[in-house]
Parts: sequence; C-alpha cells; structure tokens
Amino acid sequence: MTGNIFGERYVVASFGESHGKAIGAVIDGCPAGLSLGNKDIQRELDLRRPGISSLSTPRKEIDKVDILSGVHKGCTTGAPICLTVENSDVDSHPYETIKNLPRPGHADYLARIKYGGFNDYRGGGRFSARRTISYVMGGAIAKKLLLKTLKTRIVAYTLEIGGIRANNISFEEAENRRYDNEVRCSDSETANKMMSKILNAKKTGDSVGGIIECIAKNVPVGLGSPCFSALDSDLAKAMLSLPAAKGIEFGSGFAGSKKLGSENNDPYAIKNHQPVSVTNNAGGILGGISSGMPIVLRVAFKPVSSISKPQSTVNLESMSKAKLVVPGRHDPCVVPRAVPIVESLMAIVLVDHALRAQLIPPVLND
Amino acid sequence: MTGNIFGERYVVASFGESHGKAIGAVIDGCPAGLSLGNKDIQRELDLRRPGISSLSTPRKEIDKVDILSGVHKGCTTGAPICLTVENSDVDSHPYETIKNLPRPGHADYLARIKYGGFNDYRGGGRFSARRTISYVMGGAIAKKLLLKTLKTRIVAYTLEIGGIRANNISFEEAENRRYDNEVRCSDSETANKMMSKILNAKKTGDSVGGIIECIAKNVPVGLGSPCFSALDSDLAKAMLSLPAAKGIEFGSGFAGSKKLGSENNDPYAIKNHQPVSVTNNAGGILGGISSGMPIVLRVAFKPVSSISKPQSTVNLESMSKAKLVVPGRHDPCVVPRAVPIVESLMAIVLVDHALRAQLIPPVLND
Amino acid sequence: MTGNIFGERYVVASFGESHGKAIGAVIDGCPAGLSLGNKDIQRELDLRRPGISSLSTPRKEIDKVDILSGVHKGCTTGAPICLTVENSDVDSHPYETIKNLPRPGHADYLARIKYGGFNDYRGGGRFSARRTISYVMGGAIAKKLLLKTLKTRIVAYTLEIGGIRANNISFEEAENRRYDNEVRCSDSETANKMMSKILNAKKTGDSVGGIIECIAKNVPVGLGSPCFSALDSDLAKAMLSLPAAKGIEFGSGFAGSKKLGSENNDPYAIKNHQPVSVTNNAGGILGGISSGMPIVLRVAFKPVSSISKPQSTVNLESMSKAKLVVPGRHDPCVVPRAVPIVESLMAIVLVDHALRAQLIPPVLND
Amino acid sequence: MTGNIFGERYVVASFGESHGKAIGAVIDGCPAGLSLGNKDIQRELDLRRPGISSLSTPRKEIDKVDILSGVHKGCTTGAPICLTVENSDVDSHPYETIKNLPRPGHADYLARIKYGGFNDYRGGGRFSARRTISYVMGGAIAKKLLLKTLKTRIVAYTLEIGGIRANNISFEEAENRRYDNEVRCSDSETANKMMSKILNAKKTGDSVGGIIECIAKNVPVGLGSPCFSALDSDLAKAMLSLPAAKGIEFGSGFAGSKKLGSENNDPYAIKNHQPVSVTNNAGGILGGISSGMPIVLRVAFKPVSSISKPQSTVNLESMSKAKLVVPGRHDPCVVPRAVPIVESLMAIVLVDHALRAQLIPPVLND
Repeated sequence: MTGNIFGERYVVASFGESHGKAIGAVIDGCPAGLSLGNKDIQRELDLRRPGISSLSTPRKEIDKVDILSGVHKGCTTGAPICLTVENSDVDSHPYETIKNLPRPGHADYLARIKYGGFNDYRGGGRFSARRTISYVMGGAIAKKLLLKTLKTRIVAYTLEIGGIRANNISFEEAENRRYDNEVRCSDSETANKMMSKILNAKKTGDSVGGIIECIAKNVPVGLGSPCFSALDSDLAKAMLSLPAAKGIEFGSGFAGSKKLGSENNDPYAIKNHQPVSVTNNAGGILGGISSGMPIVLRVAFKPVSSISKPQSTVNLESMSKAKLVVPGRHDPCVVPRAVPIVESLMAIVLVDHALRAQLIPPVLND
Repeated sequence: MTGNIFGERYVVASFGESHGKAIGAVIDGCPAGLSLGNKDIQRELDLRRPGISSLSTPRKEIDKVDILSGVHKGCTTGAPICLTVENSDVDSHPYETIKNLPRPGHADYLARIKYGGFNDYRGGGRFSARRTISYVMGGAIAKKLLLKTLKTRIVAYTLEIGGIRANNISFEEAENRRYDNEVRCSDSETANKMMSKILNAKKTGDSVGGIIECIAKNVPVGLGSPCFSALDSDLAKAMLSLPAAKGIEFGSGFAGSKKLGSENNDPYAIKNHQPVSVTNNAGGILGGISSGMPIVLRVAFKPVSSISKPQSTVNLESMSKAKLVVPGRHDPCVVPRAVPIVESLMAIVLVDHALRAQLIPPVLND
Repeated sequence: MTGNIFGERYVVASFGESHGKAIGAVIDGCPAGLSLGNKDIQRELDLRRPGISSLSTPRKEIDKVDILSGVHKGCTTGAPICLTVENSDVDSHPYETIKNLPRPGHADYLARIKYGGFNDYRGGGRFSARRTISYVMGGAIAKKLLLKTLKTRIVAYTLEIGGIRANNISFEEAENRRYDNEVRCSDSETANKMMSKILNAKKTGDSVGGIIECIAKNVPVGLGSPCFSALDSDLAKAMLSLPAAKGIEFGSGFAGSKKLGSENNDPYAIKNHQPVSVTNNAGGILGGISSGMPIVLRVAFKPVSSISKPQSTVNLESMSKAKLVVPGRHDPCVVPRAVPIVESLMAIVLVDHALRAQLIPPVLND
Repeated sequence: MTGNIFGERYVVASFGESHGKAIGAVIDGCPAGLSLGNKDIQRELDLRRPGISSLSTPRKEIDKVDILSGVHKGCTTGAPICLTVENSDVDSHPYETIKNLPRPGHADYLARIKYGGFNDYRGGGRFSARRTISYVMGGAIAKKLLLKTLKTRIVAYTLEIGGIRANNISFEEAENRRYDNEVRCSDSETANKMMSKILNAKKTGDSVGGIIECIAKNVPVGLGSPCFSALDSDLAKAMLSLPAAKGIEFGSGFAGSKKLGSENNDPYAIKNHQPVSVTNNAGGILGGISSGMPIVLRVAFKPVSSISKPQSTVNLESMSKAKLVVPGRHDPCVVPRAVPIVESLMAIVLVDHALRAQLIPPVLND
C-alpha cells in the first residue's frame, strides 16, 4: 500500500493538493445502513475551515462537501464513499515568487529532490494542511458510526498554546463548550491568555505551537493487539501524519516516565461487579489494547513554519544565501483548527479497530 | 494484515510467547546478496538479553538464534528469512498462582476478555517483552543492510531514568561508549546516578521508567511521504508497539511546541554547495520525509508494572478485593535493555522506507 | 485493505455505482514526471464506451474524464491521482419495477442479503460493469508508463465468441487492427461470423459469451515472485475481478494439462548470446516470474446475464414463483467492450510488479 | 506486503526452501479457542507427502509438524501460530551438476537473473513444490475452523489426467472415497486408466498433467465483494500460486463462454421458503460473492517439468547449446499429490473471507 491510504477495515484513501482542483477521500469499508447526509460531514468541515476566526488565516475556503458515491436513499450502502471538496480562493502567485527559496521548517526543498521537481509546489501542494480535509471527512463518518454503534464519544481541545496550559477540564465541559471560544479551550480564563499569546505572535509576524488533548469515552475493552497493531501504535501513526505534529503521549506519558511503578500503576477495584482501574495513568491502553477506561492522548504541534519574519534560506537557482519573508496568508497558530482533525483521526482509528475486533457489524440494522 | 506483521517492503512477521516453545520472526523482502551469519544476529540479541547485569532480572535466557531459511552460502537469497530462539529457563509456576489476580499496569485482565480466556497467560504470553526478540532479529539484518548500502548509522542510548537526565552526548561518544556501563548512557557521571535510582527502586520492590534517545545519521533525503506513510508516522507506530512505551517525540518535540516559529524553524545555509539546515529542531523529518539531517527521536517508557510492592487488585473468581505481590523475577527498569530494541525498530523502518524509495536495490552486488 | 483497492506499489482504489453521481479511481504510487493529460485517458475510455456499435447497448454514456489531483503542468507529481467520470443518460426506472425480482445470473439477491437491503440496486449499483471505468483509467496511465519506461506493449483482442474461434493472429496484426471491426478481432473473416452470432442472439433476446486473449511484449525478466505474489497469481486476481469473467489460463493452459512434459516444456536455445526459449507454452511466466517471453493469457467470459427472454425467478416480497423479462438496454455480448479493460488490468499488474522489482523508477527523467 | 504473505484477516506467511533447514508458516489471525494438536496438521501433511505411492517420487520426506507458538492447553490462543517441518532425505548433489544447465519449464535461469545468483538453487529452492507444505499447514487449521463454525466441507479430487476425464462424481462419493486409490479420483474405473497413463509416462521418462476439481459445500451467502476482493479473484490468486498451475475456471467456466445466456443463467426457484438457483453454472459465485450454492472450481496443472528425457538447454557458463537429462527423483505427475493442497488453499481463502464478513467470530466458545 502506498503512502496515502490508511487503515485495514475502515480505509481512508486521501487525495488532492492545496491549489489543485479538489481535495477528497475515498472511504472503503464503512458498514451499510448508516444514515449519512452532506450535513453530517459539512458540520465537521466547518469546524476545520479557516477564515472564521481572528486567529486564523483570512483565506476564505468554502469547503463544501460533495458525496460522489456510496450513499443511496440517505444511507451508506457498503460501497466505497468518495467525498470531494473543491478548492477555491486560491492565490498561487506568491508560490511562483518563492519557488526557488525553500521555506525553513517546510518540506519545499526535500519535495523538490524527492519528486525531481515535478511536485505541485503551489500552496505546499500535497504537503499542505489542506489535505487534512480528507481526514476530517473520514472522521465525520467514523464519529457517527462510533456514537451509533458503541456510544463512543470523542472530544479534543486545546490544552496548551505557547507554553500556557489549561487547568483541569472535565470531559463533559470540554464536550459542550470546546467551541465556545476561538482557541477551543473550555477553560475560558486560560483561553484568553492563549489568545493574547497567538495575537502577539501574529503582530510580530511570528507563530506559536501548542498541545491538543483528545479523550475517547465508552471505548469497549479489547481494541488493538499486543504487537504491531497495538491501538496506541495506530493512533500514533495517525496523529504523526498531521502536518505539524512532532510528538504524542498516552496517559501519564513523558511525565509518567519519571515516576515509580507504584505511583504509575493503576490499581484495580470493583464497581458494578466489574473490575475497574481506580486511576488512568495508562490512558486507557494497556499492552496495546483498550482497557475500557477513557483513551487519553496528547499531540504536540510545532509553531507554524510559515512566518513573515525574515529568515535565512538559500536561493536554489543561484545557490547563494538569501533572506525570505514568506508571503501569503498563514495561521499564526494551527492548534485551534487542528482540534476537529485530531478528533477525526482518533475516530478513524477506533472504527478501524472496532471493525477488526468485530465490535461493529458490517450492516447496521435499526 | 493482522496484528503481528509490520512493514511494506521489508516485512517483519513476529511470533512466539514468553513461555512457549520459541520466539521468532519471518523477514520478507530482504534484498539478496547480503552476507549474513548467526553472529550478526546473536551480537544484537546478546545486548538485549537479561541476566547480564545487576540491573536486570536474574533470569538466564540464552537466546540463541537459529536461521531456518533464506540464507545460502552465507548470503541472503531474496527468500523469506525465518529466525527462531528457543525459550529456556522458563518457570511458569508463579503465573498459575496469580492467574485470577490481574496485575495493575498489565493487560492480564484485558487479554482474558479479548481472547475469551484462551490466551497463554504464562509469563505474559504474547504480551511479554520477550516478543521484542523478533524486533531485534529483524533489526539486526536491517542495521547491516543500512550500513552497507547507505552508510546509515543508528545509535540509541538511555537519556533519562526516573527523571535524571543525561547531559549532552555526542553521536560518536554514544556510538562508541553506550554499552560501557549498565544503564547504557555514555555520560558516565549521570549514569552512576541513574544506577543508584534503579537500585533504590529495586530495593524497595519498586520500579522506574525513563527515556531513550535514538539518532540515525547518514539517512538519505526523501524517505517517507507527506501523508499516511510519513516517516515519523511509521517510526511512531513502530516505537509504540514496544511493551512499555507511552510517548514519542521528534526533534524539539514537546518542548518545541512551547517555542515561537522564529525560534523553532531551522534556517538554511550552504555547505559544500548544498543547502543544509543550520539547526535540527525538526529532528531530521519535515513534512513526513527525511531531510538528510540526523533523525532524532525520544521514546518515553513507563516504570515496569511488575513490582513486588503490594498492590490493590481484584480476584476474578470471587470478584472480591485482593492484594497482590507480583511473584517472579522482574527488571526494576526496562530502559537499558530497550536500547538495542529501539535501534532495531529505527533500522526496520528506515530499511522499509529506503526500499520503497528504491534507495536500496533488490540485489546487492559487490 | 478492503475490497475496492488493488495493488501494492501502483494502487488503484475504485469507487462509484452505475446510477450514482460518478465513477472514479484514485491512483496512488504513480511515479512523478510522466506527461499526462485528459486525452491519454479519454482515448481508452472511448474504446470502452457503449453506444458506439450495433453490438452494444444503445445507452449513450459520454464518460468524460476529469483529473482532480496529482497532475501539475502536464506531468504527474508523485501525489495520488483522482480521476472521475460523471454518470449520465441514467434511467433508473426499470430497476424499481424489478427490485423484488432477482435476475438469474446476477448478484441482485445476494447483494440484498449481504448489504441488508441498503445496496444501491439501480443499474446493478456497485456490481455493474460501469465500475470497470476505474480499471480503464488506472490502466491508461499504466500503459503509458510501461511503454515509456520499458517499451512494454499490451494487446488484447476477441479470440472467441459463442464458440467461434479466430485463426492465428500475429501480435502486430492485432496491435494495428484490433479496433478495425466491431467485435475487435483482427481475423476479419471470423469476425464476421462472430458478429452474426451476436446479432442472432440479440434478435432472440439472448446473449453470448466468449474469450479474450491478451499478450504483453517486452516484459522484462523477473517480475513476480515464486509464492503468493506470483505474477500469474496477481494477473488472475485482477482478471477475475471483471464482472463476467469465469476463467483464466496462461500459455498452453487447460490444453497444456493434456500434454506430456516433453511436449509442453519450452526448450532453450541461444539467440544474440542470450538463452531464449524456443516455444512459449509457459505463456511468459515460469515459477511465478516473467521469463522475458511474451505474457499470454486468455479470459473466459460468460454470456451476459441480462437477457430479454422470459426467465424463472422468485418474487422476494411474496416469496412466490415469477417470470422475469429483464427490462432496460443491455449488451448482447460484453466481450468486444471488455477488450480495453483486459488490457488495462494487464497493464496495472505489470506496472505494480515492475515498481516492486525497481524496474520503473519513482521519478521519470527525460 | 511482500511476496510470501497471503490474506487479510487469516494470514499465511510462508517460508523455507526445498533443501534448507525447514519449511514453515506463520498463521496470523486464527481465532482463539479452536482445539488444535499436531495430529490435525499431520493428517493433512501425510496426504501431501511423497514416497507413499508408486506414482510419486521415491523420496522419503517424513514431514513431521512442530507447533512453535500460538497454541496453549490444546487450543489456539489468538496469537500467531508458527508451524515448521524439518527437511530431511535431502540430496543436493544433482543440483550442483546442473547448476549451469537451466531446466526447460523451470524458473532456474530466471531466478538466477532476478536474485543475482544468490538464490538457493538446490532442489529448486524457494520455487520447489515443497513450499506447499506451508499451504497445507495453513489449510489444515482453516478446514477445521470452517467445519466447526460454518459446517463448510471442502473436497478436491483428480478430475483429469493427461486428457482422461472422470465421469460425474457426487460430492459425498468424492468426500468419502477420494483417497481410496493413488490417483485420488473416486471414479475407480477411470482412475485405473489415469494410473496407466501416468505409469506409461514414467516408463518413458516423461510426465503428464491434469485437472483438479474442488468443491466447497455449506458456504454462507455473502463471502467476497463485487470489486477487487471478489471471492473468485482471491481463489484464483491462491490457486495460481501453486507451482504448476496454469489455469482456473469457476462453474461452467470456459465451456460456459460458448453457451447462450438463456442456457448458462441459473434460474431461481423456491425451496424451504428460500430462493435457490436450480442449476449451478455460476459455480457458487455471482458478482464476486458466494451464492450459497456449492463453490466449484477447476485448476489446470501442466505436466511436471523435470523429466528424464533428454532436452535442449543452454550451458550458462560457456553459453553453448547443451543436452540435459534432469537427474534426481521426480513425480511423473503432481496432480494426485496436489489434491490436499488445492483443498487447503480453498479453505484458507474461505476462512479469510468469512472473517472479513464477520461470519466467524474472533473467539470460539463452546
């Protein structure tokens, strides 16, 4: 399988470049009988869309979904679902001017070598975060499937921006209020500070990074396996396919590596005649399989590479030193917009594993 | 593909349980013409083996490799290579006594549910870290291939134990001296402190976690791809398949998420008429593909779950509260022994991607 | 991988139903640097299109290709190529009337069970031969790649219709003249008889089957492998995915099974200082790998199931016996239209294997 | 996935060469809870073993199975099952003498090119039919699974030898009596003629081919899918991976391609309040999915290539014409020994598809 296809039983094949005709995905393996309409997908796309906040790029992408196949009489049919979004408000001009000036922190130069100069460099082409539209579309269906069949709920939110970290947020709070503000952090007091941090960076032509936390509740026991298809393995693979992601941790993660076993282990107790773990330092995954406790993961995003501050680069034509001020309209921080994308990838992985474990049937009947 | 097979062009199929007959791997896709003998694999297995240090379990596993196929006249043939290691010094008795007392931090209880009680629970069965023998065997061949064809060198070492972090270590220092002490950290002064930390934990029946750093040098530009086969995606998937791994980061990682774009971007300069990045906050990967700079990643390991301190658990037969003192012989810290395993997984992923990019040929001629 | 994706290094993901919005394919793994325009694909689609001959259905499908991604400045970029064709001239009415009357020889009834009644039954939905549009689009690119990089030429033609078999046809004759007549058999005398056979069947509301022969020249030695990725294995898998295909044979095939070893073996001789086989009973494949001789295969197609003669079926609502006259416009014989489709699948498999064997590079430079 | 791994949910990874240490398979994806012992596999291996009949090679291969993993307390555990058979009675001497004389009809010369001369040529190495031991081992488990969970019964038998074809044989007759004679054809009268044909060929240092028919009963409706994972596609892929297989057909197959649609369609009737097809020209598969009728397929085997009659070949060292009398001990006809192998591959494909369709559960409980 080549580089743009993910999953075994719920497969997402992604296509499209930033400034090409369209971005899209083919979803193969979705069970038949799920009610599905444009609005189910559009809702999620609208949460990812730029131009809706002072924090993000003023580009106006309409990002209207078109369902080309796999749905009949309002339900999925079991056939592959092709979804597309046309590209619009595309201004490729700036990319012609910097074609020979690779942007630091970007793959411009590497892509040129790898693809022999044939890659579509406009807007970053295939490397652009616009391809995450295909993740969100695949995730919108996956989320709906999970909720309907397993009552699994997934919530992501901004945990940290430029080092400013939110206080404890309950799952329900996050679920209900994560989209109440523009940074997508339901700790509204900290959200204000994060917002200032982003706007300050923007003002100076700079950018900031951050951390997203994502939690899945009502995940059945037994998704994943102890070796190469560990649930955390596949979640890590999915999350690191995000353009600016540079790290991931589960449960107590890096902090847990500093603790003693007696502190980090989650002791068992009995609840409703079932063994449950009292704490969740494991982040809901033990030995590569889901424990029934909430899955908790955090993804670290680097600050956006495209900044308008002058940077040192190289002119590839003349092979001489050069200064670059990245033109065009860019987000000073991708973290808020990445919130629904992280949720989508979590959903895609969980559906895939639930199908492997036969915990979601191939036909939904109700 | 089911859960025990990894890779696309260099495929590792892992099999074997802790207390079964044998652990092994089938390597499919190894180019023909690589000289290969038992000693190439045994050398790496010996670095993983327990019983060779005061820090690890006193179990004596001989772990002698047997090559069943794929090698003829001292060279790989292009056919699948099956490698096995017999299990020995197995004492399954303790596992019978705790069969109904799931160990906190372990998958005992989950495996019982997932596999309907049919799983081999002795020594953790398939969940045991003994299955990493198959990773090390696949990695031994991968390392040799990389060095011969691309001059790629891979070095891992203990960076942190129980919160104690080593000072800066040069690649060459680590390469030459990482195995000089038992914690496998070439900063010998800090290594002594780490050692005390581990021995203290051991004394109190407890355990500690830590962080391994792994660096690959001479990685050609262009391994990986911008979407689901991002090089960092596959490295993350591989590393999170390790029994106690709970997080991974690349380059500046989680710390980088707190920085500004102007601080975290790696500016370009010219060196030997080639563009090179001056810093390496990206950890050698941009947009999912290798940049030619060293690949730098860190894996967080939780403290070992099997501790001899009494822990709260549940008796699954009587469904009542219980106290558990895990019997048997266990490592107080897995980090030192995981060093060659992390190197192996790095090598496996790099070879797989180098074959996909056609940077390693299907037949080696020289 | 689920059911609509084929290949390892040159991957075709097919989507679309007969009466849905569009049919299409995502091609992942195509090397960068291949010049590609709509006309390269349209030419092949036009050969598959119905309504252009007295032998095929009078439905008018325009089948105009749209390239959504993966091509920039007239060349492939290395990114996935999404190709779509809108459905038009769709008349779904007849399918509502026979919704409960499964057509003999069709999967109507089985699809209803498998997909719980959610499948799109209009025009056969996903089971329709219209999905072969995606095969032809993937094949058009594959053919161009093969010709450019390896000079491989692929030719298919109608060998037999309703038991009437063409006389020996040379590769060049077939290559130059297979599309000269409507049955697509360059033995024009036999073609006339085949034509009468088809028109007679049509007149009586019946249908006929036949056999297509496909030959590939200039295939390099060494595509395939001795076990599950045998070249003939993958060709057989591809061909049997064709809607009406019921058999395949290579070289002397079924007839060869009646011969002696001394008759069927292909002896070696020397030509241009190279060993070559004097005959080609092997059909260009030995031990699962290409021999350098032309690959020769034949695919058997059953007579079209949709006939207007009355047939016995069952009314699924009333569970009573019923007579069915299949309404709508159907080909009396699919074989002529399948000629470019068989060529396409041959090309797709050969490109995939040539990429696996590193005989086509990831970037074309010239 | 590379060339020695087959399947998606029930995966068989094959390894081993003819004259290496061992032949084996790793089975990944087998449900937990299937009772399994050596004898379940040994029984099938014994049916494949040579040296037990006047018709086959006098080589004495003991072929004793060893289960290395995946079975605990007499039941499968859900972990990968590694099975090996040691090679014995190996005489590699003849292969040294003909190393430079490629055998007509064999892949000797092609393997030398493909693997740069590094391939293990002894006994044909990886190209030898000895690798089908791994198919039989994977099939033995698959057969047991199918019978237990779905009551699916699979029977293959020799249908034709050297053009001599058996008369109609009922499923039950074949099931009970196919191993009563050495040609493995329960039409005992024709079996005698087949036997003479084989012995005559043997006497003259020649060989004969033939056809095996394989039938599966009690296959549930809905295995397979309409596109690239058509059930017939995967069966064809599996069967063509057999060393001497050169063709496959389903149901009426090649003969059906000569019929009219009205003759070849299978009309529906009602039986036990269910629609059933009155005939089975489709061979139990329509539109790529199983119809509930018996699956019927036939595989054509070429006559064995290794014959002791003198043949024309080329000396690869001197690049001159040469005569070859293949030394060693070879079957004059592989068809009888291939009977259990064909059954095995049928079983492997059916289990894989039944798992994909969730018709076999991941844990067997009874």
